[in-house]
Amino acid sequence: MENHIADVQKIYASPFVIATEDLLVHWQGHRRLTRRAIEAFPENEFFNYSIGGMRPFSEMVLEMIGLASSGMNGVLTGEWDKVGTLSHHTNDSKPATKAEILKLWDELTVDIEIGWPKIPLSRFHEIDLAYGEYEGPIYSFVLYWIDNEIHHRAQATVYLRSLGIEPPYFWLRD
Amino acid sequence: MENHIADVQKIYASPFVIATEDLLVHWQGHRRLTRRAIEAFPENEFFNYSIGGMRPFSEMVLEMIGLASSGMNGVLTGEWDKVGTLSHHTNDSKPATKAEILKLWDELTVDIEIGWPKIPLSRFHEIDLAYGEYEGPIYSFVLYWIDNEIHHRAQATVYLRSLGIEPPYFWLRD
Repeated sequence: MENHIADVQKIYASPFVIATEDLLVHWQGHRRLTRRAIEAFPENEFFNYSIGGMRPFSEMVLEMIGLASSGMNGVLTGEWDKVGTLSHHTNDSKPATKAEILKLWDELTVDIEIGWPKIPLSRFHEIDLAYGEYEGPIYSFVLYWIDNEIHHRAQATVYLRSLGIEPPYFWLRD
Repeated sequence: MENHIADVQKIYASPFVIATEDLLVHWQGHRRLTRRAIEAFPENEFFNYSIGGMRPFSEMVLEMIGLASSGMNGVLTGEWDKVGTLSHHTNDSKPATKAEILKLWDELTVDIEIGWPKIPLSRFHEIDLAYGEYEGPIYSFVLYWIDNEIHHRAQATVYLRSLGIEPPYFWLRD
């Protein structure tokens, strides 16, 4: 507990710019946009369409779900699943319809919303070995989930354009 | 000045998670990765290659440069260029070689590095009308520049893959 207070005091001694609540709002805004991108795909192309040998968008979305779901658990408990055990890296049965993946997506939305306020402020600056492999402060993992989601969703927008489908507007986060 | 102190006190009364310095490091890390993506393009394809009617990567990079260059000026002075006057929206003569664009990129890297510490903490939470059009707190514009850069760079990775060129690793930020 004393360490915790010292950590918080140390955090407040530096100029900070983004509030925990604002980071959550930012992330969930991006997740709403990604949900729209999923919806924009025809069922078949979501699972099978590819450019340049890259993964279909469904695989990228399962990666986003796996990283964030397992990651929120790691942040909250300090126990991290090994990266190789995450569902998108295994041959476990995977959801086979957009509807199933959207259901997982929406369940995760609720889990994040409920879990986030339980993360103590000082936790964001603790150093963990995420997924048993990546060392860094907790906040950097959250930024990575967001960045990785933007990255793969943007790749999916090229898939959509090449299919003649207009992607959702990038600035739309409601 | 009193307002400034009140603003800072208000900021410290909320739990904040990302430090200004860390946000700068995060952004410049992404900018180093984007620079690598530019370098990975063959000269001709950088200016001419497209999928699905989208812009060539050079145009996207000029947008990144325009938003960030004009944006840093807006953050530092409170004076915002109108979005329609930014160079990627006008017919002004544009750099015609990768080398010229990389030179602009590197000059902006220095400008950001020098300008960033001059932004007062409270400034990040002031509400401006960015580019004469977008209302929001300053920190949200910085996040937008980063997100927009990740988004367009990711689209460029699909261009690269479809050209048979391996993009730089997403996690490489050095």
